[in-house]
Amino acid sequence: MKLLLEKLKTIDTDIKKRKPLIHHITNYVTSGDCANMALAFGASPVMADALEEMKEITGAADALVLNLGTINKNKFISMLAAAKVAKMRGIPILLDPVGVMASQMRLNMAQELINNGVQIIRGNYAECRALLGDKNFGQGVDAGNACDDKGEFARQAAQKFNCVVAITGAIDAISDGRQVIIAHNGHELLTKVTGAGCMTTTLIACGAAVSDDYLATTVLGITAINIAAQHAAAKLQVGEYSGTFKAKLLDAVCNLQGTIIATEFKGKSI
Amino acid sequence: MKLLLEKLKTIDTDIKKRKPLIHHITNYVTSGDCANMALAFGASPVMADALEEMKEITGAADALVLNLGTINKNKFISMLAAAKVAKMRGIPILLDPVGVMASQMRLNMAQELINNGVQIIRGNYAECRALLGDKNFGQGVDAGNACDDKGEFARQAAQKFNCVVAITGAIDAISDGRQVIIAHNGHELLTKVTGAGCMTTTLIACGAAVSDDYLATTVLGITAINIAAQHAAAKLQVGEYSGTFKAKLLDAVCNLQGTIIATEFKGKSI
Amino acid sequence: MKLLLEKLKTIDTDIKKRKPLIHHITNYVTSGDCANMALAFGASPVMADALEEMKEITGAADALVLNLGTINKNKFISMLAAAKVAKMRGIPILLDPVGVMASQMRLNMAQELINNGVQIIRGNYAECRALLGDKNFGQGVDAGNACDDKGEFARQAAQKFNCVVAITGAIDAISDGRQVIIAHNGHELLTKVTGAGCMTTTLIACGAAVSDDYLATTVLGITAINIAAQHAAAKLQVGEYSGTFKAKLLDAVCNLQGTIIATEFKGKSI
Repeated sequence: MKLLLEKLKTIDTDIKKRKPLIHHITNYVTSGDCANMALAFGASPVMADALEEMKEITGAADALVLNLGTINKNKFISMLAAAKVAKMRGIPILLDPVGVMASQMRLNMAQELINNGVQIIRGNYAECRALLGDKNFGQGVDAGNACDDKGEFARQAAQKFNCVVAITGAIDAISDGRQVIIAHNGHELLTKVTGAGCMTTTLIACGAAVSDDYLATTVLGITAINIAAQHAAAKLQVGEYSGTFKAKLLDAVCNLQGTIIATEFKGKSI
Repeated sequence: MKLLLEKLKTIDTDIKKRKPLIHHITNYVTSGDCANMALAFGASPVMADALEEMKEITGAADALVLNLGTINKNKFISMLAAAKVAKMRGIPILLDPVGVMASQMRLNMAQELINNGVQIIRGNYAECRALLGDKNFGQGVDAGNACDDKGEFARQAAQKFNCVVAITGAIDAISDGRQVIIAHNGHELLTKVTGAGCMTTTLIACGAAVSDDYLATTVLGITAINIAAQHAAAKLQVGEYSGTFKAKLLDAVCNLQGTIIATEFKGKSI
Repeated sequence: MKLLLEKLKTIDTDIKKRKPLIHHITNYVTSGDCANMALAFGASPVMADALEEMKEITGAADALVLNLGTINKNKFISMLAAAKVAKMRGIPILLDPVGVMASQMRLNMAQELINNGVQIIRGNYAECRALLGDKNFGQGVDAGNACDDKGEFARQAAQKFNCVVAITGAIDAISDGRQVIIAHNGHELLTKVTGAGCMTTTLIACGAAVSDDYLATTVLGITAINIAAQHAAAKLQVGEYSGTFKAKLLDAVCNLQGTIIATEFKGKSI
């Protein structure tokens, strides 16, 4: 764990130094929030999804985020094209399988993207179960208590998909197929703002853009938003709730430093 | 009115208990705000508009919101498909006829959706007049003073469209074709943030998802955002305006309870 | 300069008086922010991009904003149709060439729109250089120090494109091909929120909708957001950053008056 915590600091420093460009093909609900998150963490976002420009846009990016929210056929074709460019260039591809348990189309798309090769998948428990074929598990349900099972489940998924898999929620489980990190920094208010998952994936991408230790970059992104949520929640005054929290969450990510993230990280390797 | 106020409490409690899933086919300008509103009120939002998944997404939802902002042909085809599923399943369909006075295409779409059967329409005065064939009335103009006429107008529209019609503005008129409720909780700051109308429709949908007393659920949603706006405005400090108001509006919706809404409701049945 | 400052006041007053309707064909990342900005400055926004309704929507608008963020073929076709209507009606067309240095498709689209006639172009340095054929200049890089060159560059671009060109950044250069205004009100926090450029273009459009002195309206919009950013930043408390800044920026635009803008403007004509 000590090594991992040291890595979190290095990766965070590198994000601030290199200001990586994160290409998002994403939904229209939370795209503005994700762009602001990337800026807050020290990276530079670009949202673009026209097939004609994927070669150039992904061609200049340092990481590619594929988010299945409000997906449609056209965007998916652009995702495949962008993924091809990312693969050729060796930049990381992150998949956020939003709502993949809710439609066969999304599940098919997610599987095709995974088959083409992705480096990191981040979803909630229901989404990750759907990816493993358990489509009827539920809608956004999060099995926060089943901590050890969640870790084992992340490991299995990571092995099957041959990439890092993060199952986020009250408790987070991150695995590269061998090591499993269980993290406990989650905050309940993150469930009260839309796009917390999407923003987490963006933060993970910022790290993955500057380091190929994808287990560490995934822990970094998740821990960053969780600790930021704790900081933001701690500053809320009587009567303040999700609206003020959302603004303060962005403030808190701006103020994060690698040392803070490493110091406040609560979790273990299993 | 006493019965209505009691219902507001029950419906609000049921939203919090059942956390209904609200399927939105909506515009890209305010979709994030609507999603956050649904969460703030205790419901769960899903935004999706690909034709291929309408059967499953609407098939799992408790209410369907059709919002004509930034509409196009493809989204409209998905709306028709989703409406079909909603009708078959008996879940409520809400129409927000954004800008329907501004283009023939939107008017045609709104009419086709209404002909297919909707349970609740919420628009401003100009939008509702356009639906009744008076297209040249204006752009977003709100006849706040013509209180009694507005009520009568809501009643006529409700009778014609055979559903609940809400005309929102400084004064709100809600009718199911027989009863008319005139509500006076509107706040001027709601005209300074984009999407106040869309968010109102979302809040109405949260109630309609758990109760088929659509007159009551419409009064609930409208009163909820209006009272939240009053609470938010009361907390603004010198120099704070629409930006801070927007955050505090969301806070205030989080803090609402059915008893507060029922107690602070100002209005009458005519 | 004195004349210019007087004009800023008049234009600002006219926006508040006439509440012009600003038709945006724009991206889904910052469209909500732009709509809120238009409202904050006293105008009325409409976002619409379906080809079928361009004739009516642009036909009722007082200015047309064409923003190339998240552009695709369909939206571009609507832009051409809307531009045709705007031209026929004599209302101003504003081009925001978002990311035009990053893809040949965007560059081609920007050039075609410019060839069809636009009144105002606002971009950052890299975007404006790309428009002039220097595509490999960089990604969002802003040459803040090269003040005099930037002015000369704006003048050349304005002459070439036969319209007002604004190059915004730490220092802003605005030219109509003859006069050049260099403005120094920029604030660094504007680089920490997504859509600062898009929102600036929206504010410029609010003025252009009520005055055909496009040099003055461009100075007004840019100075408005810059001064608002200064006011917002001055109110930030310890720990507050881009999230709170974004809300306070909108507050500050609401509170702006022509006299404040004219008094606090820092710049010169060269």
